[in-house]
Amino acid sequence: MPDVIPENSVGIVTPQAIHFDEPLVLACGRTLDNYTLMVETYGELNADGSNAILICHALSGHHHAAGYHSMADQRPGWWDNHIGPGKPFDTNRFFIVCPNNIGGCHGSTGPISINPDTDQPWGPDFPPLRVRDWVESQARLADKLGIRQWAAIVGGSLGGMQVMRWALEYPDRVRHAVVIASAMKLSAQNIAFNEIARNAIRSDPEFCNGRYLEQQTQPRNGLGLARMIGHVTYLSDELMGNKFGRELRSGSFQRGQDAPIEFQVESYLRHQGDAFSGTFDANTYLLMTKALDYFDLAREYDHNPVEAFRHASCNFLVVSFSSDWRFSPERAAEIVEALIAADKNVAYTAIESNLGHDAFLLPNQRYEQVLTAYINRIAAEISSK
Amino acid sequence: MPDVIPENSVGIVTPQAIHFDEPLVLACGRTLDNYTLMVETYGELNADGSNAILICHALSGHHHAAGYHSMADQRPGWWDNHIGPGKPFDTNRFFIVCPNNIGGCHGSTGPISINPDTDQPWGPDFPPLRVRDWVESQARLADKLGIRQWAAIVGGSLGGMQVMRWALEYPDRVRHAVVIASAMKLSAQNIAFNEIARNAIRSDPEFCNGRYLEQQTQPRNGLGLARMIGHVTYLSDELMGNKFGRELRSGSFQRGQDAPIEFQVESYLRHQGDAFSGTFDANTYLLMTKALDYFDLAREYDHNPVEAFRHASCNFLVVSFSSDWRFSPERAAEIVEALIAADKNVAYTAIESNLGHDAFLLPNQRYEQVLTAYINRIAAEISSK
Repeated sequence: MPDVIPENSVGIVTPQAIHFDEPLVLACGRTLDNYTLMVETYGELNADGSNAILICHALSGHHHAAGYHSMADQRPGWWDNHIGPGKPFDTNRFFIVCPNNIGGCHGSTGPISINPDTDQPWGPDFPPLRVRDWVESQARLADKLGIRQWAAIVGGSLGGMQVMRWALEYPDRVRHAVVIASAMKLSAQNIAFNEIARNAIRSDPEFCNGRYLEQQTQPRNGLGLARMIGHVTYLSDELMGNKFGRELRSGSFQRGQDAPIEFQVESYLRHQGDAFSGTFDANTYLLMTKALDYFDLAREYDHNPVEAFRHASCNFLVVSFSSDWRFSPERAAEIVEALIAADKNVAYTAIESNLGHDAFLLPNQRYEQVLTAYINRIAAEISSK
Repeated sequence: MPDVIPENSVGIVTPQAIHFDEPLVLACGRTLDNYTLMVETYGELNADGSNAILICHALSGHHHAAGYHSMADQRPGWWDNHIGPGKPFDTNRFFIVCPNNIGGCHGSTGPISINPDTDQPWGPDFPPLRVRDWVESQARLADKLGIRQWAAIVGGSLGGMQVMRWALEYPDRVRHAVVIASAMKLSAQNIAFNEIARNAIRSDPEFCNGRYLEQQTQPRNGLGLARMIGHVTYLSDELMGNKFGRELRSGSFQRGQDAPIEFQVESYLRHQGDAFSGTFDANTYLLMTKALDYFDLAREYDHNPVEAFRHASCNFLVVSFSSDWRFSPERAAEIVEALIAADKNVAYTAIESNLGHDAFLLPNQRYEQVLTAYINRIAAEISSK
């Protein structure tokens, strides 16, 4: 917890629950009659509403992107190093909006919410979602906040998929799309890792076919395993080597013993799994990974990404990280190639990093310089209008 | 099943159970009073016993490396493409020996064997093993078969670790060491994947703390998950892309449905997991992955692999595969560098392949040419004596 809130922090923030009564028809064909989005905003919307930036979160993210909820908070929001006064997403100049997506488990309507038809938690009956459903719900959020056009929409990983979908669905409502550590579709290997994670959850007897809340239990082992699988694949081999090497937990080779946990990396992973399964919802994890797997930017454009991007009219910044093997620089290059072929304005930066996919969440000087430079350009556009 | 046994097959083979009564003191300090090795041999040992090749199996391997057990067999042994008349390990010229290692679950003494002290299966009480224990048991097998010195010892992955340990422990008993898709020690990432697999097994309620056989059950879900994790990491991203792409099982995007299995890769993985968990023992999987994790060629040589390899006197062939990201070409290069620095005779081939770690088990013309050329040299040495 901070003794003193740092000067470049947005400080103490309070999430708002914003309710929507207009039914939302989902990509699956089902309808959410009404829903709530839990939202945080930082900075002030200017008079003409031209300085708004939407932050789209990834698989395990939520609305709490910056600042602290109280002085007792151990850690600030998940992108605090990027959002605040003088930071790349400068709250002195921009109005930053970060919702928890529907289907999430941090206050927005999702599997842990009460299904009004049954008065029980939705659980496995919550409708499957696609990235476009999040975009639609975010567009309605923009309406409610008086934002006709976003100065920028920004997201990493699954967040980057939302950014790209926005650019195609609402070309006149976004001026800049910042796509970080993302892809136009997952590879078979990525789908495979997600499927193993889902299997781990579903085969936990405490999963109870998804009705664990009604049974007053939690599939903690399965969700912990899912997190461990994700976590290892979001890091790089090099980083894990630097961080843990092959250090034994006891500091020495225990001849004759096969303790359940012997290497430092094992206890680290166990901790990651336990911590995550204590705060995240298993049905949300299933729903979010399925949305990831199904995302295919060009599916309805005859599988031609150039055709897809022709529908966009914003400028693009694409960022990748060298050691990210789940959303590799090759995937980013495919986005860039398609944008160029579609005659779009695109900047691309390949950042050197040994932090794997998680690099998009972590401090990196070059990364911050690139974002700052790009955002400064957006700020200049606004002030010159 | 073969209608006709192919001409270049070793044909119908019968494994032998070879019993050892001399107690084996293990690296862990405990002792196996007696044990059985299930062994297959192909070809004939020559008069001076100079044409013997030992095949060391990997994590999920066993003694059945070539040929068929009966005409009803669906598939031949796991390395049948390399072992047989006219194949790289030519049974017209060599006597090939392949044991199932102790701790295994295919007939050699291991966790599914009866513990004579309790008259129950050993289960989790089976002593933890290290690679050196397998080497010691294989040395005694050589004694029993009248093989003073192996013409070559060959192995991939965990098998390659046995080959390297042999070269250090019994330098006068091996003339050629063929180390394929292996490493002097695992990376933290590799250990992490193994730990997740072990967690999947241990957290299956049917695991019963390892006493599942006594409880007449099996941790099939956990073992299946472990196999899926291993399998995905043994393949390459490119291979999975070529094999499955993002093909949907139903052939079309099922709007509105979230069936448990939708992508082809998911049903493939599920099948792999189910098939494996029906034939393999969970305690053996735990034991074998721990032996993998602990292996550290240079641990007792002050962590200096050059010092370690100074103890070897054989020639080395080291082989790696370009898309193998768990036992990468970089790991092979480290072996080669250490061997060169230790003034050893080493040949190294980096094979182009998109098949990932599993490439060492699969057909590849260049790989077969390299092995054939090397083995021909060994055959020439024998006949010129």
